[in-house]
Amino acid sequence: MLTRLEKTLYRLQAQHACFAWAFEQIAGRPGIVFELGLGLGRTYNHMRRHLPDRRILAFDRKVASYPDCTPDEKDIVLGEIADTLPEAARQYRGQVILAHTDIGSFDREQNRRLSEMMSANLLPALAPGALVMSDLPLSIPQTEPLPLPQGARPDSYYLYRRP
Amino acid sequence: MLTRLEKTLYRLQAQHACFAWAFEQIAGRPGIVFELGLGLGRTYNHMRRHLPDRRILAFDRKVASYPDCTPDEKDIVLGEIADTLPEAARQYRGQVILAHTDIGSFDREQNRRLSEMMSANLLPALAPGALVMSDLPLSIPQTEPLPLPQGARPDSYYLYRRP
Repeated sequence: MLTRLEKTLYRLQAQHACFAWAFEQIAGRPGIVFELGLGLGRTYNHMRRHLPDRRILAFDRKVASYPDCTPDEKDIVLGEIADTLPEAARQYRGQVILAHTDIGSFDREQNRRLSEMMSANLLPALAPGALVMSDLPLSIPQTEPLPLPQGARPDSYYLYRRP
Repeated sequence: MLTRLEKTLYRLQAQHACFAWAFEQIAGRPGIVFELGLGLGRTYNHMRRHLPDRRILAFDRKVASYPDCTPDEKDIVLGEIADTLPEAARQYRGQVILAHTDIGSFDREQNRRLSEMMSANLLPALAPGALVMSDLPLSIPQTEPLPLPQGARPDSYYLYRRP
């Protein structure tokens, strides 16, 4: 059984490996990015650096990110993601080329609900060829699960593509 | 320049590598452990698992750790570490075989003060051969800096030994 240090370490390793792979995959394809769960802003900061020309919309119920990891106000969607995602998926219909979500916790029941909510609401936003990176397993209609790239341990993260 | 994701990832990689090395080094040597900064309890959980027979005293100003990463009440030293460490270093004089501290932030001036405080107060607690693992560089009298083990990037963590 993994320790908490190991769980977090392996999740971050997987994020890093999946981002490197995803940045290559979406290069040259138009589209915006959804960061579903801004948190401290670590992954937002990483995407901002590697995708300097993309619009990245960050969703969270409040802004608690480091100052240098905080998006412009116009790129923050405040509120419960269960409320804001369905509306944003309509507003940005078919425009999202990469969606990243890291909102799981150690509460299994809450994770199940969040996974259902993401799975039920994300699809309309996804462009053809869009990638979804998630810390929780998702079941998004019309998307296919992808194997993780090298450097990410099995089940440490989840990748999907809308064909 | 590293992104925030990379900084955190490399710090956790270094922690993991340094712990693996330190657990081997202190095997068979008596002594207790100081965890200076309990935080979420991730590294406490890792040490607890790997050092099942050691007493681990965890210091922090409040308990904010996951329930399964929280020490017994008798092993928590509550208060500002600047206040509690000098007293604990007297109480456990020469008894600490491993001290771990991960209390740095992105506030350089605060980091400098914390580093000075640790450096000035830890020595009396350290047993001969004791190891100190720190996220901030320290200058503890009578200790020597050690190279990081394989798997830890240079300057991602700091290791010291009292000869």
